[in-house]
Amino acid sequence: MTQLLKAGQGLVTPEMTAVAASEKMAVENLCLLVATGEVVIPANRNHAGLKPLGIGKSLRTKVNANIGNSQEFPDAEAEVKKMRAAIEAGADAVMDLSTGGDPAEIRKLLLPDCPLPFGTVPVYQVAVEARRRSIPFVDLTASEMIDCVAGQAEEGVDFMTIHAGLTRGALRSLQAQGRITGIVSRGGALMVAWMLRNESENPYFAEFDRILDICRQHDVTLSLGDGLRPGCLADGTDRAQVHELLVLGELVDRCRRAGVQVMVEGPGHLPLSQVAVNVQLQKSLCRQAPFYVLGPLVTDIAPGYDHISAAIGGAAAAAAGADFLCYVTATEHLGLPNAADVREGVMAARIAAHAGDIAKGLPGALDWDLAMARARRDLDWQKQEKLCLDPQAFRARRRGRETSTGEACSMCGDYCVFKVLDGVFEQR
Amino acid sequence: MTQLLKAGQGLVTPEMTAVAASEKMAVENLCLLVATGEVVIPANRNHAGLKPLGIGKSLRTKVNANIGNSQEFPDAEAEVKKMRAAIEAGADAVMDLSTGGDPAEIRKLLLPDCPLPFGTVPVYQVAVEARRRSIPFVDLTASEMIDCVAGQAEEGVDFMTIHAGLTRGALRSLQAQGRITGIVSRGGALMVAWMLRNESENPYFAEFDRILDICRQHDVTLSLGDGLRPGCLADGTDRAQVHELLVLGELVDRCRRAGVQVMVEGPGHLPLSQVAVNVQLQKSLCRQAPFYVLGPLVTDIAPGYDHISAAIGGAAAAAAGADFLCYVTATEHLGLPNAADVREGVMAARIAAHAGDIAKGLPGALDWDLAMARARRDLDWQKQEKLCLDPQAFRARRRGRETSTGEACSMCGDYCVFKVLDGVFEQR
Repeated sequence: MTQLLKAGQGLVTPEMTAVAASEKMAVENLCLLVATGEVVIPANRNHAGLKPLGIGKSLRTKVNANIGNSQEFPDAEAEVKKMRAAIEAGADAVMDLSTGGDPAEIRKLLLPDCPLPFGTVPVYQVAVEARRRSIPFVDLTASEMIDCVAGQAEEGVDFMTIHAGLTRGALRSLQAQGRITGIVSRGGALMVAWMLRNESENPYFAEFDRILDICRQHDVTLSLGDGLRPGCLADGTDRAQVHELLVLGELVDRCRRAGVQVMVEGPGHLPLSQVAVNVQLQKSLCRQAPFYVLGPLVTDIAPGYDHISAAIGGAAAAAAGADFLCYVTATEHLGLPNAADVREGVMAARIAAHAGDIAKGLPGALDWDLAMARARRDLDWQKQEKLCLDPQAFRARRRGRETSTGEACSMCGDYCVFKVLDGVFEQR
Repeated sequence: MTQLLKAGQGLVTPEMTAVAASEKMAVENLCLLVATGEVVIPANRNHAGLKPLGIGKSLRTKVNANIGNSQEFPDAEAEVKKMRAAIEAGADAVMDLSTGGDPAEIRKLLLPDCPLPFGTVPVYQVAVEARRRSIPFVDLTASEMIDCVAGQAEEGVDFMTIHAGLTRGALRSLQAQGRITGIVSRGGALMVAWMLRNESENPYFAEFDRILDICRQHDVTLSLGDGLRPGCLADGTDRAQVHELLVLGELVDRCRRAGVQVMVEGPGHLPLSQVAVNVQLQKSLCRQAPFYVLGPLVTDIAPGYDHISAAIGGAAAAAAGADFLCYVTATEHLGLPNAADVREGVMAARIAAHAGDIAKGLPGALDWDLAMARARRDLDWQKQEKLCLDPQAFRARRRGRETSTGEACSMCGDYCVFKVLDGVFEQR
């Protein structure tokens, strides 16, 4: 039985107990949220060593780090380093999006060593293997695509992105609408290429029940992909995107009826003014399923800084109720990220998630800031370093800029406000 | 006559003409906004070589870069480099906050070479000079403080932060309220130290009419400082802060009656959920005077990444109607920034300002993103580099990560969505 099915029967699992403890909430309350599907706990029963994580309502906003190699840089070891960098930087989950070398082999290096929920996009592996066999992707059968889902489920993958909502109907909406950047989801693009060539329905949609059977068996959490997410601000919240979201809402119902945990993926690129609207729309159309957003990026003009664009959109999304932020690295739109990019991306996304948690009034979220503010006021540099998001960055930025007295920082020196007014105010 | 007084008489100045052209708006409309004080054009008539800039309603959100040395790092040449870095990175204005060496000498190096509006906090120079003469700041007279304003106005400083709203009444609110981090404005802290020792009213408040005379004479734009801005999230939007804002609102009225251009400064540190509230409150209490915010930082826990925290808050503030964003560098709270920090800080703030402009529907703001999205779709890397926010960062992140074909980027290679679906959709 999946976490969802057990929760529905009022059974508290060890995973629920662990999540409730880390979230400092009563396990009975968590169990209710898992039962309604408002919280998911992606925990494949074959993933040994997993530290259970909850994603959804009333929980801390989580951060996912995408890793994975590419055709151009098929090195597997680099991905091990990137996974370690993500974990050390405090990511809550990792997705391997490898499209170079042999994705199954790379996963063997990554998954057994990953204590975080581990996600994939199975269609990438399908595409890579087809290419190795010199078979055009569009000539594959639905069964070949679904067999890959089963294989990965058997291996212990905790959550999988499946682009099942990009139906022929949604595609018609896209064609009627017109777009600047068309489809920017790789999985979505592959499915559409297949659908157009085969004049058939999206196989993941057509065979969704088979996918549900696999996911229920291993308790794989489905992450319903948004193949029609906007790829630029001008395409944001258009009819194609919302049409797909309607389908995703219905698929959420089917998942829950089948006892399969499910979350829903979202944009992408959006004007800041549309971020909250997108969260509210998803929550409404998808019966409060956890919302997993990619960014969103609030401008298209900042390649090299997309971790910052994503932090702006991610904070706004989290404040509005998004549950899970996929980081975007500074190398997005430019090339394959390295371990340093991963680290920086996780940090930016964690800032966004935390700012969102404070904004939406998550109990206890402000405590960290309060402790930090007191250490700052007391000019206690050791405590600040210990408390801050990234002690490594703290040390690096301080290096060579300390003052001779070691008291105030080198920006203000004796003009430091906490020295000028030391003892004047009562301190809380 | 100041820009405000001329606009009030319906006189279009060369500065208004230049600003209207750069903002692509009718100069008659701009003149009306200057007349009501909703737009300021900080342009000291003694600042030769100034490229006029408008700040306020219906205009692009502007970015200020703070530079300035410190006691610990009194080097003047480093500040010249930082100013150049700020200008090259696209800052709209620069403030020199030097507190080391001789601020007047440093200004002689900076101001004549600065085509951007140049701002200062005169009380810093007063404090530094008092220290050189071994006179405690609290023993200075009001006239000494005001003479410094006059001297800087004569030199050509375009806008000055004056902490005139931190009255004894506002201070009582602070003492009654209690705070975690008390006062975190350096200027505010100095004024309070003086007020407490002398048991007198804030001299900038008491002698505000003298300041107005100076500012009117040279057309210095007053930037009313928020000496009681919160220094941590927990202190956000408290009674002390709002009390000072009430005083600032009355000072705005006095500035306008005197024909002096004025803007109002704001936080600081705020939960993301309080950012829009603060903008609305300022606009309401200060009769739509341009709002100049420092960040705001949406979390206290991220030293080393405060440019990102500030970008999140700044974007939300700009979207809600803030007109002028003071950047925050990644070295904030840790030490004196260097030229690289300045560059990075300006870029982050520009992303925030632009995201805010799109969100609030500034006409034409989205055009840049649209052009970028089309270049991205067309895999036109030269055009992307030319169009993007920071071509230097673009090249640096691409270096060594290009694909052998030079077509798609090294993340997706042949799986690039624009290659997979090339020609499938009609392109807008």
